[in-house]
Amino acid sequence: MSTDTLSATFAALADPTRRAILGRLARGERNVTELAKPFDMTLPAVSKHLKVLEKAGLIERGRDAQWRPCKLKPKPLGEAADWLGQYRRFWEQSLDRLDEYLRKVQGKDKKP
Amino acid sequence: MSTDTLSATFAALADPTRRAILGRLARGERNVTELAKPFDMTLPAVSKHLKVLEKAGLIERGRDAQWRPCKLKPKPLGEAADWLGQYRRFWEQSLDRLDEYLRKVQGKDKKP
Repeated sequence: MSTDTLSATFAALADPTRRAILGRLARGERNVTELAKPFDMTLPAVSKHLKVLEKAGLIERGRDAQWRPCKLKPKPLGEAADWLGQYRRFWEQSLDRLDEYLRKVQGKDKKP
Repeated sequence: MSTDTLSATFAALADPTRRAILGRLARGERNVTELAKPFDMTLPAVSKHLKVLEKAGLIERGRDAQWRPCKLKPKPLGEAADWLGQYRRFWEQSLDRLDEYLRKVQGKDKKP
């Protein structure tokens, strides 16, 4: 995966509407009209988001001119998760430290 | 974590230089001058990237006016990984399907 693909993935995910669209597509294929419904957005506004997701390889659009269903393409999400995974030990360490701190504080409470 | 925090995290990660800066900070604290060295960038350009990372809560900068070391703050990375984790079954499924396909193709090769 080139650096630019990873940048495109993260940029596409940096928007709550686009993340919500992916969330809906995780439940099954939808066309633009169906996707637009819960967002109170115009079709062109939703189409613009879909174009960003499609360019980032996160969705695929059917060729049927009438229906054009959108489908989730999970591969870039897996690659973004792999990139983040390199840092797992850091956030796990900080949770461990928080845990240790809380245990200390609770220990102190028991011995006034 | 609010939706905006997640958007800020993904937006901050959507740049190869900022990801490389996080990679260097994973190996220990660095100040702006040290961070600028490998990137062939001006100090103001690096400072701009550091501001984005700091605003997204991905780094913390020391108060020492002389040195101001930057330190990795891993919590938002863990939260971004959690968000991506919701989609794990999708990319794992597609890897399984690829595996199945490759097994079929290799099976066919053996029986000409």
